Amino acid sequence: MPSLPRALGELGGSCGEYGDRVDELLRGSGCGDSVPLHRGRTVFEPCARPRGWREREFGVSPEEEAPVGGVPELREAFAEGVGGPRGGDVLPEQVLVTGGATHALSIALRAVLRDGDEVLVLSPHWPDAAALVRAAGGVVREVPVFLELGAAGFGFDLMGAVEGAVTPRTRAIYFNSPNNPTGYRLDRRRLAVLVELAERHDLWLIADNTYDGYDFTREGFPDIAGIGAAAERTFSAHSCGTTYAMPGNRVGYLVCPPEAAATAVGWARCTGGGVPTVAQFAAYEALRTPRAELDRRRDRAAAAWWLADSTLQVPHTEVSGGLYTFLDLRAWGDGERFVRRCAQLGVGLAPGRNFGAHCGSWARLCFTAAPPQRVAEAIERINKIYGEGADEH
Amino acid sequence: MPSLPRALGELGGSCGEYGDRVDELLRGSGCGDSVPLHRGRTVFEPCARPRGWREREFGVSPEEEAPVGGVPELREAFAEGVGGPRGGDVLPEQVLVTGGATHALSIALRAVLRDGDEVLVLSPHWPDAAALVRAAGGVVREVPVFLELGAAGFGFDLMGAVEGAVTPRTRAIYFNSPNNPTGYRLDRRRLAVLVELAERHDLWLIADNTYDGYDFTREGFPDIAGIGAAAERTFSAHSCGTTYAMPGNRVGYLVCPPEAAATAVGWARCTGGGVPTVAQFAAYEALRTPRAELDRRRDRAAAAWWLADSTLQVPHTEVSGGLYTFLDLRAWGDGERFVRRCAQLGVGLAPGRNFGAHCGSWARLCFTAAPPQRVAEAIERINKIYGEGADEH
Repeated sequence: MPSLPRALGELGGSCGEYGDRVDELLRGSGCGDSVPLHRGRTVFEPCARPRGWREREFGVSPEEEAPVGGVPELREAFAEGVGGPRGGDVLPEQVLVTGGATHALSIALRAVLRDGDEVLVLSPHWPDAAALVRAAGGVVREVPVFLELGAAGFGFDLMGAVEGAVTPRTRAIYFNSPNNPTGYRLDRRRLAVLVELAERHDLWLIADNTYDGYDFTREGFPDIAGIGAAAERTFSAHSCGTTYAMPGNRVGYLVCPPEAAATAVGWARCTGGGVPTVAQFAAYEALRTPRAELDRRRDRAAAAWWLADSTLQVPHTEVSGGLYTFLDLRAWGDGERFVRRCAQLGVGLAPGRNFGAHCGSWARLCFTAAPPQRVAEAIERINKIYGEGADEH
Repeated sequence: MPSLPRALGELGGSCGEYGDRVDELLRGSGCGDSVPLHRGRTVFEPCARPRGWREREFGVSPEEEAPVGGVPELREAFAEGVGGPRGGDVLPEQVLVTGGATHALSIALRAVLRDGDEVLVLSPHWPDAAALVRAAGGVVREVPVFLELGAAGFGFDLMGAVEGAVTPRTRAIYFNSPNNPTGYRLDRRRLAVLVELAERHDLWLIADNTYDGYDFTREGFPDIAGIGAAAERTFSAHSCGTTYAMPGNRVGYLVCPPEAAATAVGWARCTGGGVPTVAQFAAYEALRTPRAELDRRRDRAAAAWWLADSTLQVPHTEVSGGLYTFLDLRAWGDGERFVRRCAQLGVGLAPGRNFGAHCGSWARLCFTAAPPQRVAEAIERINKIYGEGADEH
């Protein structure tokens, strides 16, 4: 066959690949009751299940192809939901229904990047973020901030760290808050720093709001697009799979600056088209989930975090939102070895190096990936391995 | 906001856009009973409807996220289906479940192209094909062949035409057969020419098999991947939406050369991820449609073609497969004006210029986009406008 121009490794082999590898380690361990805390998921019931429907329920029939940007009724519902947090009206035309937050981010990156443009990726970062930037022709510049913010708080110069990475080729800042993998949440004051920087250097802001439904603080989730004039330069990616516990439905949405929306729809059209109508209807049903039920889920996630925090004997990040804590294994040794050792005892963790070049001595734990009792059992095993020390293996 | 690096026009504004424009013309005409023959569709009943299901029916639950390449059961079923036409066993790993044929083509193009690589797009071509090539960083080189083959048959030097367009930057040949918009079908002898050329110049073959279910000839659909050693260099895109009349379900699949499959999955992962599980299940159900029923649908499409052919008083291409004929308006004048005039009388046609730089005096008619009686009425109006001549308007 002809040669392939790009090796997969160029995109970042980490993209989802470590999950399969840890699955394999777990299978190889022979532990019948392994606990897959390496996967980002919840054990919550889905808020809606796919089903057929009548046309009058949704404006289109199940068989009909939706416009590339999504079924109008669903775009309107999403727009209404984000209008408040973004600080003003959002037009349905600004909202694209996408194949999950991944697809949303992919479209935003394709829309704003030329080949070789740099994206400041605040790190540790969701592994796929780096691959998405590269797949869109961009160059990843990791900017370590979340561990530093967690450790030093206001003692950390966020503005200096991010601005120090800006070059003439920088086009955008990507960040995920509440953060995967650290659980760190950027508050309005930190977000305002990013807005100021973006305005000063004329950058796009690409906000990965996947965990906006899991902000554990009293203030609740702050949307960067609602700060000052940020909405005109902010693409926000949202995940119904995460918020409504429907990962198999693969629906998310992208909120675009008004003047960039048509371009984003164009990129959606030219890279694969729209989302199955049946999946859009299931998301539409999920949107009717009562606020109290969503709050209850958030509180269950927070309770899972408290349980993990109070039982873990491994140093780990302080969590204010999301589904993860990041284990600090610097005193133990290599994070990869720790992950392998845990897998031998039937506990799945995600190796830290996938989350940033400086994260080799860390590992991610998802505290919602199993029922509380199972998470507690897994943490007991993790503590045991950590207590044994690195040298014994 | 910061500037957007690429105008949508660079991708080819034609991408789906003419459909909305003709819709608007039809609405503006005030004809209550307009016939939308500009859309590529059938009026057939869907072979399956989305519904919930039990896990044991499909190996995964509707809520569960499928692997990026698709649910294993569905990949196996697709692989089994294409094995025969491709001339040998196809491994499930070679098959990716995609968001329609569009997404399949997008992935194949991203996998094989570097920025600036040229793709020979045999034309007239599906409008979105050009946009997909550009969105993948490629450069479109149109190679007019289908009208020439239709007019001159073996008098036309296919090898010379295609080979004359090869440059050192050429990486792939894209073609769609049965062809949208001409209805021309490349037989095995013509396909063998393309294989020979691809081998001689070490090119990829990107076969758009969207209309493989609508081959009206006695031989049936010939898959280029089944010719000689072509399978090692052929990506084939298939559309369940077209074959099973389920456009709203947006499922298709991409068959890859064995050694390119992992790369294709990587691109799928880094550009949006997988297809909703519920949509994959609906496609799986549709695959159980009896052969006789699919043959009946093909025969209905062929009957629609015979009706159009026998009633059209406008010169048009001879159809051996697919859902379209291309109207030759060179004697009448400008194709765009003809389309506008037809819209005034409530008939939607697709303007020819979207299908190739040399097709401005043509227009596409989809003979399956309305029930036969409605198509016949629409053709009466088309004949009337053609008979009036261009000068009167």
